[in-house]
Amino acid sequence: MRRIRILVAYDGTDYCGWQIQPNGITVEEVLNDKLSKLTGEDIHVIGASRTDSGVHALGNVAVFDTESPIPPERLGYALNQKLPEDIVIVRSEEAPLDWHPRYQKQVTKTYEYHIYNAAFPNPLKRRYSAFVSYPMDIEKMRKGASFLVGEHDFVSFCNVRTNVEDTVRRIDGIEIDKKGEDITIRVTGNGFLYNMVRIIAGTLIRVGRGFYIPEKVKEILDVKERTKAGVTAPPEGLVLVEIKYDCQGLEGRE
Amino acid sequence: MRRIRILVAYDGTDYCGWQIQPNGITVEEVLNDKLSKLTGEDIHVIGASRTDSGVHALGNVAVFDTESPIPPERLGYALNQKLPEDIVIVRSEEAPLDWHPRYQKQVTKTYEYHIYNAAFPNPLKRRYSAFVSYPMDIEKMRKGASFLVGEHDFVSFCNVRTNVEDTVRRIDGIEIDKKGEDITIRVTGNGFLYNMVRIIAGTLIRVGRGFYIPEKVKEILDVKERTKAGVTAPPEGLVLVEIKYDCQGLEGRE
Repeated sequence: MRRIRILVAYDGTDYCGWQIQPNGITVEEVLNDKLSKLTGEDIHVIGASRTDSGVHALGNVAVFDTESPIPPERLGYALNQKLPEDIVIVRSEEAPLDWHPRYQKQVTKTYEYHIYNAAFPNPLKRRYSAFVSYPMDIEKMRKGASFLVGEHDFVSFCNVRTNVEDTVRRIDGIEIDKKGEDITIRVTGNGFLYNMVRIIAGTLIRVGRGFYIPEKVKEILDVKERTKAGVTAPPEGLVLVEIKYDCQGLEGRE
Repeated sequence: MRRIRILVAYDGTDYCGWQIQPNGITVEEVLNDKLSKLTGEDIHVIGASRTDSGVHALGNVAVFDTESPIPPERLGYALNQKLPEDIVIVRSEEAPLDWHPRYQKQVTKTYEYHIYNAAFPNPLKRRYSAFVSYPMDIEKMRKGASFLVGEHDFVSFCNVRTNVEDTVRRIDGIEIDKKGEDITIRVTGNGFLYNMVRIIAGTLIRVGRGFYIPEKVKEILDVKERTKAGVTAPPEGLVLVEIKYDCQGLEGRE
């Protein structure tokens, strides 16, 4: 028996997220199905990040156990032959049998939130960015974002459905870049609450278009109340870019 | 009766190209259908560029005639309400009744061909770029492209199915840029033969990966023989970016 660690990229548009659920097809389900066919075993992957419906990933991490004689490094290639085009195994390798993608200490995750900011939507951007037609002030967004960096109780930036008890997280940095009509919010931290990055993005979009002053971000953080609906930015703009484990092994995308 | 000129952007992935044909849905057909519903008339658009199946556009141009009382500038907004997400009217305006998008002199067209060049495919790029896993030498591609600039008989760079008699065209410039894993070939000229940009892209990809030396491009140009299949790059990488008319009016994307 070996434990195999895989780095998984996917276009989340046509999936009901990572985690298996009764109402639609998920990335986890497709991986289990194709891996089971490939190995002839009953395979169940365990994912690092259970991304939401419509959210994308370039570097999600998962593990599974197998008796397969296929060398660990070749399993990714073999699996890619069976997977649909919108899921790609970027790397596969052997991991210690007790290595679990969600129970490692010293993890940093990086997400990007993409915005297409122009007078008209661009049909080539619609699957991978949120469309904002209002003019956006990037400097104000950066100022607003600066209040979030550091260790804080982010309870105001999580969905009311969150049931975790500890809502303190550390954000290491938020970079906001604009190239032409494309705005990218890049957030790195040690963990994120449910919908946290999308609520941060939704809030910073409001700052960018002048609906909130930048200091409103600090005010929301300080009030420590679970967010009511309305500022969660849509899923298509979100990409899980990288999960960095402090231990040996899989560190992001090649 | 008024003639309305529209600037049309579309994701060509799910269309059998621009021009109406019996085997699948086309952009022209969707526009005719939605415009006819919007105006209550039997509308037939005339497009500037009959892009191929799977090819995208940010700035295709079309005209149609209507008695509709909707102001010309508002027709685009009204039509966008009815169109699927993958077709967007970026602008609409009145044009002279004799203005035809294919019979104007002094036109320049710009196409971009997008390549994703990495060890593994990226599921977020697959709809809008060709995947090339071989290392690519951009300087060699630029050198190869330089032989194509100017007025030439491009018969070697058109598909065997082409039936035009005059195969002389002028290429004003070919820019090749690389940002991370994204390579863009941007070609501007006064007109393009059937599949010409995709054959240029396919040829330059061979130069980039070292399969052809750059001088091979000049050799292919000089031999003046209709291309046999094999170097036409796939449609998903191609975007019609802009059509510039020297007369007044619609000049590219806002």
